[in-house]
Amino acid sequence: MANKITERTEDFSQWYQDVIREGKLADHSPVRGSMVIRPNGFALWENMKQALDQMFKDTGHENAYFPLFIPKSFLSKEAKHVEGFAKECAVVTHSRLRSTDDGVEVDPESKLEEELIVRPTSETIIWDSYRNWIQSYRDLPILINQWANVVRWEMRTRLFLRTMEFLWQEGHTAHATKQEAVEETTRMLEVYRTFAEDFMAMPVIKGVKTESERFAGAEDTYCIETLLQDNKALQAGTSHFLGQNFAKAFDVKFQSSEGEHEYVWATSWGVSTRLIGGLIMTHSDDQGLVLPPKLAPNQVVIVPIWKSDEEKEEVMDYCDDIVSELKERDIRVKVDDRENMSPGWKFNEHEATGIPVRLTIGPRDLKNNNAELARRDTLDKNIVEREGLAQRVDDLLKTIQEKLYTTAKERIEDNTHSVDSYDEFKDIIENEGGFVYAHWDGTAETEEKIKEETKATIRCIPLEDGEEGECMVTGKPSKQKVLFARAY
Amino acid sequence: MANKITERTEDFSQWYQDVIREGKLADHSPVRGSMVIRPNGFALWENMKQALDQMFKDTGHENAYFPLFIPKSFLSKEAKHVEGFAKECAVVTHSRLRSTDDGVEVDPESKLEEELIVRPTSETIIWDSYRNWIQSYRDLPILINQWANVVRWEMRTRLFLRTMEFLWQEGHTAHATKQEAVEETTRMLEVYRTFAEDFMAMPVIKGVKTESERFAGAEDTYCIETLLQDNKALQAGTSHFLGQNFAKAFDVKFQSSEGEHEYVWATSWGVSTRLIGGLIMTHSDDQGLVLPPKLAPNQVVIVPIWKSDEEKEEVMDYCDDIVSELKERDIRVKVDDRENMSPGWKFNEHEATGIPVRLTIGPRDLKNNNAELARRDTLDKNIVEREGLAQRVDDLLKTIQEKLYTTAKERIEDNTHSVDSYDEFKDIIENEGGFVYAHWDGTAETEEKIKEETKATIRCIPLEDGEEGECMVTGKPSKQKVLFARAY
Ligand SMILES: [Zn+2]
Ligand SMILES: [Zn+2]
Repeated sequence: MANKITERTEDFSQWYQDVIREGKLADHSPVRGSMVIRPNGFALWENMKQALDQMFKDTGHENAYFPLFIPKSFLSKEAKHVEGFAKECAVVTHSRLRSTDDGVEVDPESKLEEELIVRPTSETIIWDSYRNWIQSYRDLPILINQWANVVRWEMRTRLFLRTMEFLWQEGHTAHATKQEAVEETTRMLEVYRTFAEDFMAMPVIKGVKTESERFAGAEDTYCIETLLQDNKALQAGTSHFLGQNFAKAFDVKFQSSEGEHEYVWATSWGVSTRLIGGLIMTHSDDQGLVLPPKLAPNQVVIVPIWKSDEEKEEVMDYCDDIVSELKERDIRVKVDDRENMSPGWKFNEHEATGIPVRLTIGPRDLKNNNAELARRDTLDKNIVEREGLAQRVDDLLKTIQEKLYTTAKERIEDNTHSVDSYDEFKDIIENEGGFVYAHWDGTAETEEKIKEETKATIRCIPLEDGEEGECMVTGKPSKQKVLFARAY
Repeated sequence: MANKITERTEDFSQWYQDVIREGKLADHSPVRGSMVIRPNGFALWENMKQALDQMFKDTGHENAYFPLFIPKSFLSKEAKHVEGFAKECAVVTHSRLRSTDDGVEVDPESKLEEELIVRPTSETIIWDSYRNWIQSYRDLPILINQWANVVRWEMRTRLFLRTMEFLWQEGHTAHATKQEAVEETTRMLEVYRTFAEDFMAMPVIKGVKTESERFAGAEDTYCIETLLQDNKALQAGTSHFLGQNFAKAFDVKFQSSEGEHEYVWATSWGVSTRLIGGLIMTHSDDQGLVLPPKLAPNQVVIVPIWKSDEEKEEVMDYCDDIVSELKERDIRVKVDDRENMSPGWKFNEHEATGIPVRLTIGPRDLKNNNAELARRDTLDKNIVEREGLAQRVDDLLKTIQEKLYTTAKERIEDNTHSVDSYDEFKDIIENEGGFVYAHWDGTAETEEKIKEETKATIRCIPLEDGEEGECMVTGKPSKQKVLFARAY
């Protein structure tokens, strides 16, 4: 089979689409900007969900479900919130179709009194509920997460990275004190960092957004940012300290232990199927998808090879034993015993779909008590002994997980610069890309000027302390260097 | 605490609402007909999902995700399908809001060229994808399931049983032969029966719908039907044999192994959060929610009782050991050590939220090496020995699971009648309710006449063979008695 994947150096954007298609992750849908998540893509998302969900539960959160539709008037209640989302809303205006000679049309008599917005995010509908749930400090904190679909009417879409409808989780918490809410915000940011690095093998930098990049309605937006193979940055998760903004908009007060009536403090935080785009652009290569073993739907595939029926029985017995040993170790393994497909064809498919480890077993392996072991990340192949195979595979999966992280970490470090002059900044942004640390005077004007002149944005003000200095553009004082990049 | 739950005999409908409120399962939402699923309700749904999902995977299905929005023209492609859903659709017509002096309004300039329908079910959008995925018999079968939210603009809604938006799973399979598709349809019906009876402890009858009750676009609709405590029936799950209707509507053909081009055969099948309504009305009582242990978010709650700090430490140690022993057996247990709440207040809450088993542990229990064990279903309490406690609780959970099933089974049997005359039929439907088996001549006219005169509908034609006879209304020949009831 000819490799159907464009090389990264040739056309990164086409490569990305090819990896998704050959990896059987997703399709474009006939609804502009929407996508179909195929079984291989969805199984990956399910593994991501499961790991995140456990981390949310371990930090005391419960899941719930709030309505898809938000009354238009709710959006207006928080001024900045509606400003941020009004221009990209799917609006439901009618509740019925009627027949015509050649199909159906919207029945004008079914026009709604108040239009409904398909949720772009759920702060408003949730805080409307919280008003009913919260009376006293005893009802706090509320620590709720929701797994849901949301819709934002994006004009320029790209599979996973930016789609009109996407899947995500949104945490929405309510607290008695500012301090608790701020702690929650940073706790969940750390959950996201852990997930990105330990499960996705995707190194990230933690920081806080500038005012102009803040979530609509937030007091502070914390984020994790990563750098992809084309040297563009990706915001991979956000955690918002919402202050008392939504409590005030929805009139949610509680009686404190001292008997005072106070507004409730809020956070929200989310990651989405966009992470899958980041995962692909972090690890995949010109052969297709590369997946970290912790998240791969199948961690190991076994390809049995035989000629006669007698060989088939022996080979399959040999494979079955290996499967049992791997499953005992909770390794996700499948046997690809499809007939009418050559081993080479299968190998290509397994590479393109990102299965971390492949075992090939033929009659010769039975005779010699061997197996052929192939690694997806390095494409290395080795003949290994049957004895101790399960332990070896188990170790190899851990090795691959670590290797993907360190490779990505080194790549990002190699593509991170720290500059002192605006000329140097422009040169690197234009010619190399990547992360660039530079001093900035803290004003929206300078931020905007840099963005206009270089297309680079401030990804975040890193949480790690930095040294003081002077803005590379204006020369005004700067507390620390901030992180710039061109971004998705 | 006064019991806030209306008695069933007094007002069944109010009782149902009270059980949901006190069980912390769901709230009404400000969007008419929508609901908020609260953490206790959602944890129940998660357990149901997990059990069903495993059964789907065990029968070879994979999960995927298709878009929320369906182009209006897609719905029209299958004539009966659009007829069935056109009158209850949420229609998206615009993609933007704009500011006004006192809020926001729909921006008329954002009107869509083609309106989008919020999916009421996904056959059309999925078969549009299947056209791209299926070329040859080698691509078949496709066995896909989707967990999703769907919207049907219902006018009369009731929490869980009928809501505008609900959560469900929808299986959509594609097959090379009619026989395979029919087998899939009945296989999934059996999966639903198993889930209803073995997990929900909710006895059901399997059957096939009459033509007038068939899913819009199906050749045959199979169903499971149960009978609730108010003697009304509930359709709890459906599995549709779709023939080649959607393949023809979306032009999905495959090349058979003989080289012929043929239309693909289809099934679809689904259950929804409506099942939670059925679960409540099957088992709950005047104290509130009763849950089968296999699905209960918490299977055991431990209430520690102490007066001094010294007592507290001893009691908590004693409880911690019990928790460890229960967790070793994979029993879901929580300790309710909230302060400032009396044991009685907690007991009421645990009863109302349906925790199957409660253990109360005080200083006296430590001294005597005992525990107080209470069963939610029977409200029995016993002092039991500490030794062997985990085993006893484990056994008790199984006993409760079985007891709930047999109690429901007996109730349904006691409320199932078989009649030969229409007078007897009308008498029972009007005065007792319940399931009534009777002969019917197989015509839509007679079915409609019975419905108009008695409000009873044919729930299904049971899959079990019955004896021939004469229609109770027209005297015409009948192949077997069919199952009637008034239904939700
Ligand atoms: Zn450089
Ligand atoms: Zn009777």
